[in-house]
Amino acid sequence: MGRGEPNTRSRLERAAIELYLERGFEGTTVAEIAARAGLTERTFFRYFADKREVLFGGSAELQCLLVEGVADAPATASPIEAVAAGLAAVAPIFDGRWSGARKRQAVINANPELQERELIKLATLASAVTEALRERGVAEPAASLAAQAGLGVFHVAFQLWVTAPRKSDLARRFEESFATLRIVAGS
Amino acid sequence: MGRGEPNTRSRLERAAIELYLERGFEGTTVAEIAARAGLTERTFFRYFADKREVLFGGSAELQCLLVEGVADAPATASPIEAVAAGLAAVAPIFDGRWSGARKRQAVINANPELQERELIKLATLASAVTEALRERGVAEPAASLAAQAGLGVFHVAFQLWVTAPRKSDLARRFEESFATLRIVAGS
Repeated sequence: MGRGEPNTRSRLERAAIELYLERGFEGTTVAEIAARAGLTERTFFRYFADKREVLFGGSAELQCLLVEGVADAPATASPIEAVAAGLAAVAPIFDGRWSGARKRQAVINANPELQERELIKLATLASAVTEALRERGVAEPAASLAAQAGLGVFHVAFQLWVTAPRKSDLARRFEESFATLRIVAGS
Repeated sequence: MGRGEPNTRSRLERAAIELYLERGFEGTTVAEIAARAGLTERTFFRYFADKREVLFGGSAELQCLLVEGVADAPATASPIEAVAAGLAAVAPIFDGRWSGARKRQAVINANPELQERELIKLATLASAVTEALRERGVAEPAASLAAQAGLGVFHVAFQLWVTAPRKSDLARRFEESFATLRIVAGS
């Protein structure tokens, strides 16, 4: 398997998030994460640059799928429909990860520095979507406005999904929030 | 005048921003700001907690006017119209401050840490607007979605205004961007 067993990464992720919830993000060391996972520190650093990357390492994949989804939307799609296609493309990566996403969110909600990192992640995604819309020929400021509103949908719908008492379909939450945005912003 | 001459604050602000542009934000000390303004460090600290507050000290006033503007919108206003009323209420504080706003923006664009602070400011404003919409009886997720889209308008229109080669009317930029959002998000 090249860089170790296929589940090494997820073992490290699970151990890290358990410890962040028990001891706080600041109060956890890489040595403790590795020990909890039954692995060495060296193995940890083969997968993650630092303990924050355990929480944000998925951002690059998310951005890639989002941008591809926007680019691949039908030529007839309006700007906001193209952004909706991007969100529809990323929803499946959260399938089967609701429980992990809830724990990750609890870790982030407990730490202002991680909340700032999450805001930066969203702003980076908004820039990438703006660029993808421009490449579809959408003029400014329509591209920026559609990207900002669309990432607002991502943020609000994701929060609804991750904080709800029961697991639900994230793609549906995205669709419903776009429908609400249409009503809210279109009047 | 209680806490010194009425223009002491703006003298300090001007001196600080000049130095941030010349030497970078990191490379400037409070002692240098005070000296450039012909004042003492002690006077600086009577107005600002630290050198970052020179750039972000206006956030509280901005948030206050924004929230009041949302609250005071006519009862018949839709959620996004209420947010637009909030933005219309803040536009006048930037009247006559275009040149200063451009310099401030140049300082922020040169420093990733200040850019993060700006993102946090926008997120804080979005939360305050969400709360103001809820108090108008707007249900969730409509309140959050309208606030996020509205702050997207604030961000995009402000950037257009501050980066344009000529001074223009910020209130008009806000109105035009809301009109574009309606087209972009309503289809």
